[in-house]
Formats: sequence, C-alpha cells, structure tokens
Amino acid sequence: MENKVYETIVGRRSIRAFQPRQVEQEALDAVLRAGLYAPCGRGSQLVTLVAVQDPAVRARLTAMNAAVMGTDGDPYYGAPTIVVALASPERPTWVEDGSCALAVMMEAAHALGLGSCWIHREREMFDSDEGKALLQAWGVPAGMRGVGALALGYPAGEAPKAPERRPGRIFKV
Amino acid sequence: MENKVYETIVGRRSIRAFQPRQVEQEALDAVLRAGLYAPCGRGSQLVTLVAVQDPAVRARLTAMNAAVMGTDGDPYYGAPTIVVALASPERPTWVEDGSCALAVMMEAAHALGLGSCWIHREREMFDSDEGKALLQAWGVPAGMRGVGALALGYPAGEAPKAPERRPGRIFKV
Repeated sequence: MENKVYETIVGRRSIRAFQPRQVEQEALDAVLRAGLYAPCGRGSQLVTLVAVQDPAVRARLTAMNAAVMGTDGDPYYGAPTIVVALASPERPTWVEDGSCALAVMMEAAHALGLGSCWIHREREMFDSDEGKALLQAWGVPAGMRGVGALALGYPAGEAPKAPERRPGRIFKV
Repeated sequence: MENKVYETIVGRRSIRAFQPRQVEQEALDAVLRAGLYAPCGRGSQLVTLVAVQDPAVRARLTAMNAAVMGTDGDPYYGAPTIVVALASPERPTWVEDGSCALAVMMEAAHALGLGSCWIHREREMFDSDEGKALLQAWGVPAGMRGVGALALGYPAGEAPKAPERRPGRIFKV
C-alpha cells in the first residue's frame, strides 16, 4: 500500500540519541499542538503539557527521574527538550488520555524530522513533594499527576531499525 | 508549516457515523500492523489485538458493552469492525502500551481514509467470566485484560470539526 502518511506513522521508532541543538519554538509548538488534538475520553481535554528547555530545570528533572530509577545517569538520553504529560485523575481515563497525547506527539515529532522516546516514572516524580512544588511554581493547576514524558530532539546517528514483531499478537474473529 | 504528514496526524477526528460497507482485509491488516509498531514499554510487544468483523460476535460485544454502560444502544456507533486492544498486566505499563497502540491505529486508520473512535469499557467486558470465555475461545493467551477498542469503518456524513482547544494546557519552562 503506497501511502506516505501511513508509512511515516508506522515507520516511527523510539530515538535514544540526540543532537545537542535545541528544538526551535515553531517545531516545539507544532508537537505540543498535536498533543492537544490527540483523542481523549469524552472530549475532556484535561491533558496538560509542560515543555522543558531550560537547562537547570531539565537537569533537575533528570536527577528526580534517575532517583526514582535508582541510578545517576540521564534517563532522558541527553535530549535537549523534555515534554511532560500530566492529567487529572478526576477523569477515569486520565492515564489513557495522557498516553494518547504522548503517542500522537511522537508521531507528529517524527513527521517533523524530530525524534522522541517515551520516558517513564513521571508519576512518581510529580506525586512527590518536590514534584508538586515544581508544578505549583510552573502554574499547573493543582491535582495533576504525571503520565509520562518525551525526550525530544533531533536524532543523532543512524535511524534505529525496528526489531521483528513478536508473532501471535493479532486475532481475527 | 506545510507538512502533509503532520497535518494529517493533527487533523484526525473521532468518527461516530459509519458507512455499512465492511473494511477490506488489506486496510484492516494495515491498521493492525500500525498497532504492532506503536511504542511500548521496554519493547515488550505484549499488546494483543482482536479484530472483530463477524456480525454475531460484533453483536455480542455490543450487548456486553451496553450492559456495562447500562444502556441497550450500540456503543460502537454501528461501525462494521471492532478492534479490541488487550494487554498483559505483567507489564506495569500495560494500560499505557494498549493506549499507544489504539492511538497509533487511529492515526493510521485516518491516513488510510478510515474513521475510528475509541470506545471504552473493554476492561470490564473482558474481566467478566463471559469475556474471559470469549478470549479463551479466540485463542488469546490467558491473563490479558482489555484496555479499549476502536469502532472502525468508513466515515459517513460530513467530517466532524474539532471543538476549540481548551486554553491553559501548555506550559513552557
């Protein structure tokens, strides 16, 4: 099936090596906009996105994430931008909604020549007192919880190849 | 920003009215394939997809979903195909993984001229004895739980317009 849009969507791979150059505002805005248009339960539009480019804040998130992980590396793979997705547990589908926003942003980033990787542990990070204080300082409405985050930037090195798909995952009835 | 792939991704809307004609196998296979290539935690590839086109099975899922909902309508909006996403709770990110598969399949379906809508309540449906018996009859590995499903088909009527985006959902730091 020759369909460039379809092939681009399927061809996205998670990127774990990034160029140092920062994501421009126009490209970042486009990625975030895609997240706002992701599907969400009952059209609630409660997923909230925090784009972090400030090096000091980025370093703080790195330290917080690594602490949850029990390491001292950079769980965000050196990406110059981190996009955190938060959602409000007042909606029973808050995890699903946040996940959809992250998945659609990953596809949009790929379409724009950017690379991304879903990084986890933001639930623990923003459930902590330190995380809640950060959200408050940023002006994020109270009660939001972390769903996940993207490491975002321009890919470095060769494009990763997809491992073979595990068989037995599709059933038709 | 002129980018057809990006605009298609952002332009997807949830479709709630479908033509009666069935989704062809080639198009269905392409949608399912996109789900297999969606991002997932630690490359686990444990999300499993069940595509339902058999009218009797479809009617049964409709009745089960409506019962969870407490109605007697068709929660799948008359779509000729239902794609159920299941995942294994052995992975802590099973809901996130299933959600990513559903979101990427929605984008792929849109790229292929199909329409879809995320339908919920498959967790309750396939946690029930009736649902577990169906999964077993279909040959789905034991222990899988429902994450969600897509109503899938060719859109009928005018393309829905996106409601305005709720403000205050993006923060930059």
